[in-house]
Amino acid sequence: MDKKLEYVLKRGVTDIIIEEELVRLLESGKKLRLKMGFDPSRPDIHLGHVVGMRKLRQFQELGHQVVLIVGDWTAQIGDPSGASQTRPMLTADEVQANAETYMEQFFRVVDKKKTEIRKQTEWYGDFDLADVVKLTSKFTVAQLLARDDFSSRYTSGKPIAVTELLYPLLQAYDSVVIEAGVEFGGSDQRFNCLMGRELQQIEGQEPQHVFLMPLLVGTDGQQKMSKSLDNYIAIEDPPNEMYGKLMSIPDDVMMDYFELLTDVHDEELTDIKKQMASGANPMIFKKQLAAEIVAQFYSVKESDDSAEHFQKVVQKKEIPDEIPSISLKATPVTSVLLLWNTGMVSSRSEAKRLLQQGAVTYGNVKLSDDDKVFVPRDGEVLRVGKRRFIRTMVSI
Amino acid sequence: MDKKLEYVLKRGVTDIIIEEELVRLLESGKKLRLKMGFDPSRPDIHLGHVVGMRKLRQFQELGHQVVLIVGDWTAQIGDPSGASQTRPMLTADEVQANAETYMEQFFRVVDKKKTEIRKQTEWYGDFDLADVVKLTSKFTVAQLLARDDFSSRYTSGKPIAVTELLYPLLQAYDSVVIEAGVEFGGSDQRFNCLMGRELQQIEGQEPQHVFLMPLLVGTDGQQKMSKSLDNYIAIEDPPNEMYGKLMSIPDDVMMDYFELLTDVHDEELTDIKKQMASGANPMIFKKQLAAEIVAQFYSVKESDDSAEHFQKVVQKKEIPDEIPSISLKATPVTSVLLLWNTGMVSSRSEAKRLLQQGAVTYGNVKLSDDDKVFVPRDGEVLRVGKRRFIRTMVSI
Repeated sequence: MDKKLEYVLKRGVTDIIIEEELVRLLESGKKLRLKMGFDPSRPDIHLGHVVGMRKLRQFQELGHQVVLIVGDWTAQIGDPSGASQTRPMLTADEVQANAETYMEQFFRVVDKKKTEIRKQTEWYGDFDLADVVKLTSKFTVAQLLARDDFSSRYTSGKPIAVTELLYPLLQAYDSVVIEAGVEFGGSDQRFNCLMGRELQQIEGQEPQHVFLMPLLVGTDGQQKMSKSLDNYIAIEDPPNEMYGKLMSIPDDVMMDYFELLTDVHDEELTDIKKQMASGANPMIFKKQLAAEIVAQFYSVKESDDSAEHFQKVVQKKEIPDEIPSISLKATPVTSVLLLWNTGMVSSRSEAKRLLQQGAVTYGNVKLSDDDKVFVPRDGEVLRVGKRRFIRTMVSI
Repeated sequence: MDKKLEYVLKRGVTDIIIEEELVRLLESGKKLRLKMGFDPSRPDIHLGHVVGMRKLRQFQELGHQVVLIVGDWTAQIGDPSGASQTRPMLTADEVQANAETYMEQFFRVVDKKKTEIRKQTEWYGDFDLADVVKLTSKFTVAQLLARDDFSSRYTSGKPIAVTELLYPLLQAYDSVVIEAGVEFGGSDQRFNCLMGRELQQIEGQEPQHVFLMPLLVGTDGQQKMSKSLDNYIAIEDPPNEMYGKLMSIPDDVMMDYFELLTDVHDEELTDIKKQMASGANPMIFKKQLAAEIVAQFYSVKESDDSAEHFQKVVQKKEIPDEIPSISLKATPVTSVLLLWNTGMVSSRSEAKRLLQQGAVTYGNVKLSDDDKVFVPRDGEVLRVGKRRFIRTMVSI
C-alpha cells in the first residue's frame, strides 16, 4: 500500500467499515464523497472536532471531495421537547450567521476548494408526511432501540421521545441525498453511520464506508472534549490561551493529542514514549505539542511568542511585561462589578463563579464574591486565572 | 338519570372513560362532537361495524353531532412496508369512489343530517417534517410500546416498523383537529383512543371521552367479525343471504347479537335467556333475531320473505320454487369454468376453494376441482353452499 494512504488509514483511526472494500476503492482512484455534517446552533469548533477535520483534509489531499452538510433544518426546528435550553430554535438569519462562523473556522483545516456545501433545507424543506412514512417503514423499533444509549435508557425506564428515533433516520437519509461514499464520525457515531449504510443499500445505492475515530479527551483528562463540560480548547482561542490550555492537559493524554492533532511522525512518538518511560520530564514534550498545535492555527512566530509568554507568566507566575489596561471611574464597585466593568467576564454569573473558585486577585489580594464595595485603584493589576491580566487606570 | 340516556350508556357498552364526567356533560345539554373514522381502502360495512354505528345513531337522537373522518390520506399512502397485499395504495379517484360506497352504507344506520364529513388530507396534505417532529416529541417510545400488541410483538422479537408508532399519534391528532368530544371504538381501541385524550390535553383542549364497545363475534362464533376471516355478514348482503347467515351463528353468541344489534328490550332478553335455560329451542329466538336485523336493513316484508325462503330452502333442504337461470353454450367446460361462467364466483381461486370444500353440486352430484371437462346440461341446477342456486339453460 502507498505510504501516504497507509498513514491516512492507520493514524488515529478506531475502526473502518468495511476496511478491505474502502482500500480497494481508494486504490482504484475513484473520487469519493466524504460526508460531514454540522449543527449551526453550535458554531464553535474545538480541538475535539479537529480530529475528524484533519482526517477529511488528509482525504482531500488524496483527491477526494468533502460534502459539508449545514444542519440548518434541524437548527430551525430546535429542541421540540422544550426541556433543554441548549438547543434553542434559530431564525434563518441566525442560522446563516452561525454557518458562516462555523465555516470560517472549518476552512482553517479543511480545503474549501474541495468542499461542496449543502443545506438540509434543500431536502427537508418539503419533506412531507408521506416521505416520513416511507422512511420510517424501512426500520424497526427494535433496530433503533439496539443503539447503546437508547437501550440503556429504555431498560432503565428513562424517557425516549419518539422524535429521537427519527433523528438517526434523518441522518441516514442525508447520506442517501448526497450519495455519501464515506461518513466520518467519532467512535460514538458507529450506530448512526451504519444506519446510513443500511438506508443507502435499501435505496439501491453503494453503501457508504464508515470511518470511526477516537474521541479526544478534554483538558480535564477524563471526559470527551465538549463545550458543555468546559474542558475544551476552541480553535478561536488566542495563541496564549490555546498554548496555556494545552500545557494544562494531564501527562497521560498527551500522546493522544500528539497522535490525533499533529503530524509528528510515528517513529518520533515512539521515541517520546520511550524517553518518558526512562524518566524524561513530560513538560518538554508537552511544550512541543502545544507549539505544534498553536503553529497550525496561527504561525510559528505566534507559537514561539506563546511559549515565551507561558514561560514568563505561568511557569514563573510573574506578571508579563506588557498587559492591557482599562480606564475606570473612581466610583465604588463590588468584585462582580469590577470584573464586569473591565470586560474580563462575559456575564455576572461567570464573575460569581470565578470569584467563588478563588481565581481572581486584585493587586495580589484574592477577591471574594461578597457584596462589599471598594474603589478601583489606579495602576493596579486584576488577574483572572493564571493567564489573564488587566491593569485598571483610574483618573480622579 | 333519564331512561333513554341510561339505555344509551348501559346497553352494549364495555367501558366509558371517564363515565362520571361524560354523564355530567350529557346532562348539561352540551352538544358533543362524536368522532368516527374509516379507512376507504376497506369500504364494506359488516355487522361488526354496525355495533358502533348504532351507538352513534343513539347519540344523534340525543342531539349530538357525528364527525366522520374519511381516512383518504392513509388510503393514498397505502402500506409502506409493501409486505401486505391487503392495504394497497389507492388513487384519489378510487378513494372517492370507495368513500361514496362506504357512506351510502354508513347512512343506512347513521343520520346524515347530523353528520359532518371531514377528510384527513385537509390536515395531513401539508403536514411537514416540522409538524411530525412536534407531534412525536410529545410521546415516548415506552408509552407506545405499552400498547398490548406492540409490547407482545416487541418482547417476542417480531418486527415493529417505526411507522407503526406514528399511526396512533396521527389518530390522536385527528381528535385534536376535529376537537372530538367522544371517540367510539371496539374494546381493542382503548389505547389509541386514550392517546387522543392525552394529546388533546397537551394541546390545551378538553380531553375527549372514550366509549368502548364489545367486539362482535363472527358467524364462526369464535373470532372477531372481519372480512379477512370470512366470518362476516355485510350490510349489503341480500335479505336471504343475511337471514341465512344469521341463522348459522352458534346459539351461544345469539344473545350478544340481540344486545348489540337490536333494540329488543332488556326485560325481553332476560326472558329469552330464561326460556332457553328451561329447554326452549334456540331456533325460535334465532329466527326472531334474524328477522329483526333483516328488517332493520330492508323491510318487514323482505324480512318475512327471507324467513319463508329459509324455511323452504335451508331447513327443508329443498330447491326453491323460483331460481334464476343463465344461458350457456354447449361447449365442454371444467368445474371451475362452469362456476365462473355462471357468475357464481368472483374469481377462479374462489371456485377452486369451494370445489375443494365440496360445497358445489350440479344436478345433485358433487363437483370436484379436477380438470375433467363436461358439457353443461339444459335445465340442470348448480348449487353453491346451502343457499345459492342457478339453473343452466343450454340451447344446441
